[in-house]
Amino acid sequence: MDDLKQRALDYHQFPKPGKLSVESSKPCATQQDLSLAYTPGVAAPVREIEADPANAYKYTNKGNLVAVITDGTAVLGLGNVGALAGKPVMEGKGILFKRFAGIDVFDIEVNAATPDEFIQTVVNIAPTFGGINLEDIAAPHCFYIENELKKRLDIPVFHDDQHGTAVIVAAALLNALDLQGKTLPRARIVFLGAGAAGCSCARLLKRMGATDITMVDRKGILDTSRDDLHDNNRELAIAPGPVKTLADAMQGADVFIGVSAKNGLPPELVGSMAARPVIFALANPDPEILPSQVFAVRDDVIMATGRSDFPNQVNNALCFPYLFRGALDAQARQITEEMKVAAAHALSALAREPVPQQVLDAYQLQSLSFGKDYIIPKPFDPRLMAFVAGAVAQAASKGE
Amino acid sequence: MDDLKQRALDYHQFPKPGKLSVESSKPCATQQDLSLAYTPGVAAPVREIEADPANAYKYTNKGNLVAVITDGTAVLGLGNVGALAGKPVMEGKGILFKRFAGIDVFDIEVNAATPDEFIQTVVNIAPTFGGINLEDIAAPHCFYIENELKKRLDIPVFHDDQHGTAVIVAAALLNALDLQGKTLPRARIVFLGAGAAGCSCARLLKRMGATDITMVDRKGILDTSRDDLHDNNRELAIAPGPVKTLADAMQGADVFIGVSAKNGLPPELVGSMAARPVIFALANPDPEILPSQVFAVRDDVIMATGRSDFPNQVNNALCFPYLFRGALDAQARQITEEMKVAAAHALSALAREPVPQQVLDAYQLQSLSFGKDYIIPKPFDPRLMAFVAGAVAQAASKGE
Repeated sequence: MDDLKQRALDYHQFPKPGKLSVESSKPCATQQDLSLAYTPGVAAPVREIEADPANAYKYTNKGNLVAVITDGTAVLGLGNVGALAGKPVMEGKGILFKRFAGIDVFDIEVNAATPDEFIQTVVNIAPTFGGINLEDIAAPHCFYIENELKKRLDIPVFHDDQHGTAVIVAAALLNALDLQGKTLPRARIVFLGAGAAGCSCARLLKRMGATDITMVDRKGILDTSRDDLHDNNRELAIAPGPVKTLADAMQGADVFIGVSAKNGLPPELVGSMAARPVIFALANPDPEILPSQVFAVRDDVIMATGRSDFPNQVNNALCFPYLFRGALDAQARQITEEMKVAAAHALSALAREPVPQQVLDAYQLQSLSFGKDYIIPKPFDPRLMAFVAGAVAQAASKGE
Repeated sequence: MDDLKQRALDYHQFPKPGKLSVESSKPCATQQDLSLAYTPGVAAPVREIEADPANAYKYTNKGNLVAVITDGTAVLGLGNVGALAGKPVMEGKGILFKRFAGIDVFDIEVNAATPDEFIQTVVNIAPTFGGINLEDIAAPHCFYIENELKKRLDIPVFHDDQHGTAVIVAAALLNALDLQGKTLPRARIVFLGAGAAGCSCARLLKRMGATDITMVDRKGILDTSRDDLHDNNRELAIAPGPVKTLADAMQGADVFIGVSAKNGLPPELVGSMAARPVIFALANPDPEILPSQVFAVRDDVIMATGRSDFPNQVNNALCFPYLFRGALDAQARQITEEMKVAAAHALSALAREPVPQQVLDAYQLQSLSFGKDYIIPKPFDPRLMAFVAGAVAQAASKGE
């Protein structure tokens, strides 16, 4: 890990600081070029946009430009590091947007005294952008911030930590349940972690047909007798009953989804799950339970983690670049539930396709085919663009 | 002009909209690359910056990243076109920053209800940047906005429309007066236009030694009897006296500087100036008076305009890229008067140097040497970086 740390610092520092560069996409070598790029030529597109704001998509980079915006309050697993210290992560997110979907990103680190001030700041700079990707903002402010921005802006707003994870979890779970001979509507699902990602996952699964979800957080089962619930997780609470603890909930459960940095899953609870269960232990870098611990207890499990060194990595890069690509290409005014569901189904379908040699080469694999160790596509699969962005754009167009 | 308009629209629209692209400056081909650029490697620079904010200059692009920020209230000569319609100009400005000084620019178009809200927005996003270039913000708000931001931020803030023009005018005027056998302290100077650029020019010239400046705007001479002055131009008003009109002021004047889009200089007033006068007619695209009109009246004039099709173009690209380059390289916390004066002297000195073949080639010229038709460097002169950025960085270091 010390080696990784030094390599990462070197990577960020040399030969010049940071990871991004803004380049001209048009000729700018001669005075003639610049007379088109700047004065006097630039007056023409200005006038066109003044006459019709939609022309900004024709004459500026707005339609391919996403703001990755944070307040630095929940950066990776590192917590509230502040806006400035979040910058390397936001630049990195920009690199992923570009690498996977050709989207230009401005990372914007925001210092604001209150959520309302944060919201006002984003609203004020929004003319610049074709979309807003909120990133690493702590719960519960992130819910309010995203909801308000969605109301006030006419461009897509997406809090990736919530919904990106949800889309990929949904895609992976559809495939895992199918392989285990189960279905979403009949599966008993337990979440450990009821923060931003957990709540969004649970809601998306409900929308896609899940009926039996029990949320568990540090204080125990989310039931309606608790007085510490908020708008975002209250609707996910169950009626108070005999299920009081994680151990109670895990008895006979078909699915465990861990999205909690703080809590682990005791191996003995794995044994109490139903036959052919699904375990997604997504805490990063330390999953709630390791695959080796799970398979020491039983071998009829399909498992996923957030790590690239185990099979079935739930990696947000599978979703957000293509979701925004589809939304931008369709000039969608928002990211709808339908677009997220479409993305999940597309990811799920892609994992069932034969894997091309190019992907095997990228991962130095001899073979790879749909099954318990391959329930979601690999991030370097070049077909993701066509599958996911295409499905999202189609869903966006239908919704208009 | 219609041909230029169509070429400019095509330039902005094809092959893809806009003029900029954000690229990775580091390898991002493989999963290993991305494990350094993003999770898990990125945690290392995050922790370093959390421990010491100065490390943002070491591990992120902050130190090479300038925000070009507008509210769209005074875009070029087009007026209040709104934030969004200003975007092509701001992208163009970014291209110039990159082309001439290797600086990365995020253009940010801000919709804000009040100057204070604009200020708060910029303060809130400032952690992202190493410097702020304010652009095309109407007077008098621009003065308040710049002053407040300078107070509240610890990175350079610079309103180019004011101070960029001032630096180049000062450089050109030093050389023009010298060629005419005059000096700044003894020159009688008349400004037509007392807006953002005019006031900043006048103040910088005073700082550099000018003693006799008369400002004229649409309502006449700025004298202290007027009740419509504001904080920014009151100090430039003269005592009320016999000089009531532009014609009065021009009697025997050594220097005329036009920075007014709205008013022209009647040719007959050129005749009433002192011997060997200097006329800078900087309104764009239509100067207050054309060179042909001036030289029809007399031929002992040194003249400059804002246009590239006449000699002596006062072009902001001569200053802002290098001023910021010097400021960023010195990690200056602000743009001081000393840095502006240093830039003006450097530009003035460069124009006196022999012109290399490379510059002649760029402008398809047989020869070019210091004299009445060459009092300021050409924008494509590659020596500008060393001369201007170097002088600014040195002045910044002295000021620390």
